[in-house]
Amino acid sequence: MGIIGLDVGGTKTAGILWKDGKIVARTWERTDVTSQETVLSGILATCRNLLGRASSDALRVKGIGLGIAGFIDLEEGVITEAPNLPFKDLPIREILEDELGLPVALDNDANVAALAEAKVGAARGLRHVIHLTLGTGIGGGIVIDGNIYHGARGAAAEIGHMIVKADGPRCNCGARGCLEALASGVALARRVREIAEQGKPSPMLDEYRRQPGNYPASKIAEHARKGDETAVSLLREAGYYLGVGIASLINLFNPEAITLSGGLLGAFSFMEDTMLAAVEENAIAISRRSAKILRGTLGEDAGAMGAALLAESSFGECR
Amino acid sequence: MGIIGLDVGGTKTAGILWKDGKIVARTWERTDVTSQETVLSGILATCRNLLGRASSDALRVKGIGLGIAGFIDLEEGVITEAPNLPFKDLPIREILEDELGLPVALDNDANVAALAEAKVGAARGLRHVIHLTLGTGIGGGIVIDGNIYHGARGAAAEIGHMIVKADGPRCNCGARGCLEALASGVALARRVREIAEQGKPSPMLDEYRRQPGNYPASKIAEHARKGDETAVSLLREAGYYLGVGIASLINLFNPEAITLSGGLLGAFSFMEDTMLAAVEENAIAISRRSAKILRGTLGEDAGAMGAALLAESSFGECR
Repeated sequence: MGIIGLDVGGTKTAGILWKDGKIVARTWERTDVTSQETVLSGILATCRNLLGRASSDALRVKGIGLGIAGFIDLEEGVITEAPNLPFKDLPIREILEDELGLPVALDNDANVAALAEAKVGAARGLRHVIHLTLGTGIGGGIVIDGNIYHGARGAAAEIGHMIVKADGPRCNCGARGCLEALASGVALARRVREIAEQGKPSPMLDEYRRQPGNYPASKIAEHARKGDETAVSLLREAGYYLGVGIASLINLFNPEAITLSGGLLGAFSFMEDTMLAAVEENAIAISRRSAKILRGTLGEDAGAMGAALLAESSFGECR
Repeated sequence: MGIIGLDVGGTKTAGILWKDGKIVARTWERTDVTSQETVLSGILATCRNLLGRASSDALRVKGIGLGIAGFIDLEEGVITEAPNLPFKDLPIREILEDELGLPVALDNDANVAALAEAKVGAARGLRHVIHLTLGTGIGGGIVIDGNIYHGARGAAAEIGHMIVKADGPRCNCGARGCLEALASGVALARRVREIAEQGKPSPMLDEYRRQPGNYPASKIAEHARKGDETAVSLLREAGYYLGVGIASLINLFNPEAITLSGGLLGAFSFMEDTMLAAVEENAIAISRRSAKILRGTLGEDAGAMGAALLAESSFGECR
């Protein structure tokens, strides 16, 4: 018996076929966010593609797990809101079950990624795990006692929107001083813009001034590696705020592990020192001692694997 | 069958006799923190006093619940650290069970207070509840799915040490910008001192300058009620930071309720507006809508009642 796991984001839709704790097939396509219908037909195409592969291997598929970048009404199987997808109050579980004739389990993409890192990734076997995805934004998932923690309405674990600096910079969410506004790709791009406007010399800022816009974190890391001091200091600053946020998480949750993944880890060597210093300064010793800070080991597969694991636990083990 | 519930803090030891969901007797004494022995004999005296009352009512006592201001190893029943009590690695469960011949259940005082507000207090019947005690410091407890959330080593829910302002004022815990360093009695006293040093005129500051020291929040509230603008603005400022902290908790936990108790609520009318404004600005709408912000209804009894409830669930219902 197999399971299909899908990770549906605003940029790409990744799918896996999962059997006996392993990925046996993998698929990937760009998410076409033109409309609700285009996204849905992309999801269906991915599922049918993987069902075809399963059938050519004579593998029966037990069900489908879906991780979606959005707020989800877990009881109803409805996507209520999705900032980066054209979904609003969409009863996606019912739609997919009707189309595919298979049971569908649904959760937020960051939640299932956290589940994957806790079950089969960096924090394998640990019961209390907090996962952060550091990219353009900051996503997160909380695993308590081996299960995804959802809160009252499925909206928990908005770790990127923990406020780490009251009165801090405005976040895309409307709040101020969110972790995402201080330690994400978006935050770094804003800092490049702010500092460039101050006219400070630096190869990175010169490049930005020639072509202003959304400066990517990967370029900041590139300049940092070449020794650009401004680039280094911006990454160190983001690392500091990340460490403050992690310290807060440690003090609140006393987790066994914090796992980190996402594109920003490409610049992590420049963020790590200040991150760790901020954790040491701000975390309570008794909780700090029991909290490992780990890099996720599942990379881009975490979401789809977590979706498969979710489906597995919803529909029974697959052997 | 009855249960004894005790709330052991650095200032006082409160005890109740609990039967059928009600307090049938109550006792209270100052905690003598001279030594481990003096605290222990105070606890034993309180228990024996309540056992005597039970026996005169022909009520059999099933066990004892203890809420203690400290870090507790739940498996071993050991108080590992206690900032305001002379306890260090004390196997208190074993000691009390040996002395009293009754089973003892043990937890942190703020945790059991949270349990009480969630089970029989302001958030009665709600599953996901976060409780804050606003006093000299800020304590907290987290109830998830009706149970106290402990984390990996029993040290979770240090809500007062969530960092709400990176680089903010130094907290007693050594970290910077903790909620406790911005919105507690200690924080308000520090602000009075800071502003008094700036020489600003105000009846409150004049009083402080005549007799500097640890200025109590109750006095700030008193001056605020008489119209002292400095007092009002300090309380509004603390309310703002409290709201930022509550917003973070809402974004992380998506709770059904946040309950507030403690001495600072005496000044709450001056804090409430800015608190609510900060929550509205910083909390994610979907989680904000499901989170009630409530005043605790159990007052000083919350700790002892929560200890009794903990014992009840550990040793079975008492009828």
